[in-house]
Amino acid sequence: MRLDLKSKIREVPDFPKKGILFYDITTLLSDSAAMQEAIHQLTLPYRDKQIQKVVAVESRGFIFGAPIAGHLNAGFVPVRKPGKLPHTQIEEHYDLEYGTDTLGIHEDAILPGERVLIVDDLLATGGTMAATAKLVQRLGGDIVGIVFMIELLFLKGREKLKDLPVFSLLTYE
Amino acid sequence: MRLDLKSKIREVPDFPKKGILFYDITTLLSDSAAMQEAIHQLTLPYRDKQIQKVVAVESRGFIFGAPIAGHLNAGFVPVRKPGKLPHTQIEEHYDLEYGTDTLGIHEDAILPGERVLIVDDLLATGGTMAATAKLVQRLGGDIVGIVFMIELLFLKGREKLKDLPVFSLLTYE
Repeated sequence: MRLDLKSKIREVPDFPKKGILFYDITTLLSDSAAMQEAIHQLTLPYRDKQIQKVVAVESRGFIFGAPIAGHLNAGFVPVRKPGKLPHTQIEEHYDLEYGTDTLGIHEDAILPGERVLIVDDLLATGGTMAATAKLVQRLGGDIVGIVFMIELLFLKGREKLKDLPVFSLLTYE
Repeated sequence: MRLDLKSKIREVPDFPKKGILFYDITTLLSDSAAMQEAIHQLTLPYRDKQIQKVVAVESRGFIFGAPIAGHLNAGFVPVRKPGKLPHTQIEEHYDLEYGTDTLGIHEDAILPGERVLIVDDLLATGGTMAATAKLVQRLGGDIVGIVFMIELLFLKGREKLKDLPVFSLLTYE
């Protein structure tokens, strides 16, 4: 029998601000069976894809990316906010609702031609993931998949990720 | 043959500021065999300890905490900075070199009496972990272990964690 993963996600109204319904994954994470089922389902499509590096976005992406890397026998690569990575890095800037933000990756984290799976918890407007995909591509990585725990369909994030192989486990209208 | 995990850690001088030698774990994380050996060794002491929740500290702690939770069949609980957790939380403030910082945990993340393993990447001055341990104790959690990938012995962080069962995998003088 398949676990109903959506039933493990807590819906929090008005977070982070009024009018927004936040899908809180912490209730899924704290349920060992649900967490393992989620990791299993997120990993399954990539089992035979010879993934060499799993790239995950700070910080909730780390929670899914690290176990997925382990299951795929792949290395783990963090994409982080400014000031966090100690070695030489490349950066991408992207637009937020107000202002811009920046993400970076170590320049030696991915070798040209390496097969990469990118992981994050949430596909919302897609800005974060578009920047992350660009970072991977600039290092010469081959993006085999981009996987999300949750996709908010009404924000149309996939439009920012055209031509990229996106898979999301749970979707909300 | 046991992997030499220290050889996988990159030493970066003068980060985040002049005079500080930073131990960069990203080179270990990106090496699949080294990462899995590290997770194995970090998990081993707790295999038979009936751990129910693995608590990890944002954000590098998530990278180790999530796979360890999976290996122990335990739930995963994030401890986060202010403004990140959507549900009712409790907070602890702690001193930094300049100023203070705050960490929070969802008030329903741990049930009274649950057996808890706390995970972070680095034991430096111990302030972050002392605050995290307090959060767990305030919720009634039973701290079975506190595990670090790296301990910087010269910063004497253990003195802030007296009476707590600390284990660190790699130590630096």
